Amino acid sequence: MMGFAERYSQFSEGKNSILCVGLDPALPRQRSQNTISKKYLEEADENVARLVFCLDIIEQTGDFCCAYKPNQQYVWGFTKDQHETLTTAIHNAGALSILDYKLSDIGASIDSALFHIHECGYDAITFNPLLGNLQATVDTAHNYKPPIGIIALTLTSNPEALKYQTQATIMGRPLFIAIAEDVKGYAADGCVIGATGHVTEADIRTIRVRAGEDKLFLIPGIGTQKGDEEKVIKAAGRNILINVGRAIIYSENPAEKTVEYNKTFNELREAQS
Amino acid sequence: MMGFAERYSQFSEGKNSILCVGLDPALPRQRSQNTISKKYLEEADENVARLVFCLDIIEQTGDFCCAYKPNQQYVWGFTKDQHETLTTAIHNAGALSILDYKLSDIGASIDSALFHIHECGYDAITFNPLLGNLQATVDTAHNYKPPIGIIALTLTSNPEALKYQTQATIMGRPLFIAIAEDVKGYAADGCVIGATGHVTEADIRTIRVRAGEDKLFLIPGIGTQKGDEEKVIKAAGRNILINVGRAIIYSENPAEKTVEYNKTFNELREAQS
Repeated sequence: MMGFAERYSQFSEGKNSILCVGLDPALPRQRSQNTISKKYLEEADENVARLVFCLDIIEQTGDFCCAYKPNQQYVWGFTKDQHETLTTAIHNAGALSILDYKLSDIGASIDSALFHIHECGYDAITFNPLLGNLQATVDTAHNYKPPIGIIALTLTSNPEALKYQTQATIMGRPLFIAIAEDVKGYAADGCVIGATGHVTEADIRTIRVRAGEDKLFLIPGIGTQKGDEEKVIKAAGRNILINVGRAIIYSENPAEKTVEYNKTFNELREAQS
Repeated sequence: MMGFAERYSQFSEGKNSILCVGLDPALPRQRSQNTISKKYLEEADENVARLVFCLDIIEQTGDFCCAYKPNQQYVWGFTKDQHETLTTAIHNAGALSILDYKLSDIGASIDSALFHIHECGYDAITFNPLLGNLQATVDTAHNYKPPIGIIALTLTSNPEALKYQTQATIMGRPLFIAIAEDVKGYAADGCVIGATGHVTEADIRTIRVRAGEDKLFLIPGIGTQKGDEEKVIKAAGRNILINVGRAIIYSENPAEKTVEYNKTFNELREAQS
């Protein structure tokens, strides 16, 4: 059965898009800006309100992106049925569903997480490799039909990431390079790579060489976080998926913004090819 | 306001216990053994069945332990109301609630996770420090009332952990030591330390010296995973919380097992003092 990165290529080509829309539904009482509209809460509980907000975004943007990335920290408290409603809507929009879950656990707990995640219909998840068990996780995830893609946090863009991901070394090499090599060695599906701040074009190229051309690079940090999309597209080459969250979902016109970002990314891709 | 480690000391002294009961409610269709009884599913959906199983365990064991640790990978799909029912039962049993969540995220996503976790009534969570932002997480978590305790994964017992936690170095020191120092430097509340396999008494002593006497050591891996409780108690000294999961919750008599483990740990503590 086709693996996640290969499925991604098909979806991306079919829709002529490398855009992923990040679904981060924050409640109005949670923070002062970038929240779902209060209208969603007029006749629904907070779970339904957040879910319907996401469904509305999918309806408005589904033609111009190839994946959605619900963020675990924002869909906190969703039931499995609600997750399934979300992934069904994503699939009906002809897109892939990636749960930004940052799974890190061991043994039977990994198995339990994947059991539930599979039942919710997610095509892939993000994974935190600190516990060293990427291989065991990939093996279990790939046994599901369709296989659950495992996308490992490789180099994040927050300034404090330098300490543990770059200054830390294994056999003289930065940790993020060891992670990229594990992604290749253990047949994981991709890498999460920050696009802003300290992450350089050279870093992205290095990860591409170590992880392999066939791996999907999931790149958050474009849009509100002002990452440099040109840098990313130039350095990462093929098989990239650029996530835009707040700048689309909390804009006045999500459909228009999605079209704009998709167009920008495609123009930058064409300029590279 | 009293921090989590200090609150823990009070609970532990009050109940004369360093035992934490791990709540890992697996469904019968999820695996072949160590699952909740099918009777829970006769008249309830899978969320309610798992929740009621946990409430029954708390009712049977509450007098002989000082904390419960629900595991995110097993309570997958619980609503926030269900989480709150769980933490309320834990508090009514005179115990602390630690969500084994292994949080790893950045910026606004960390804030969102802590917002929801606080509303669910958890006293502390586990945290994965790979992204380097322990300080920012602790600062936000400690602003809640009561402060949410942050217990950082420091050295796990799975064999693959060696690569990223021990062989990886920062300034010539193993990563787990750098994490222990960050726990102290950033005023986090404790460390998660595996009790089995490759983790030695010397490792545990080293973490104690670097992290500080006042930090809580949460020690999973006793019971089914056959950790060496004597080694742990000897090396870690005061402020430890030993988690036993499957060996209690899936035994024929959880109350009896809880009394037994509690007695064993207390005898070992007395032998050390």
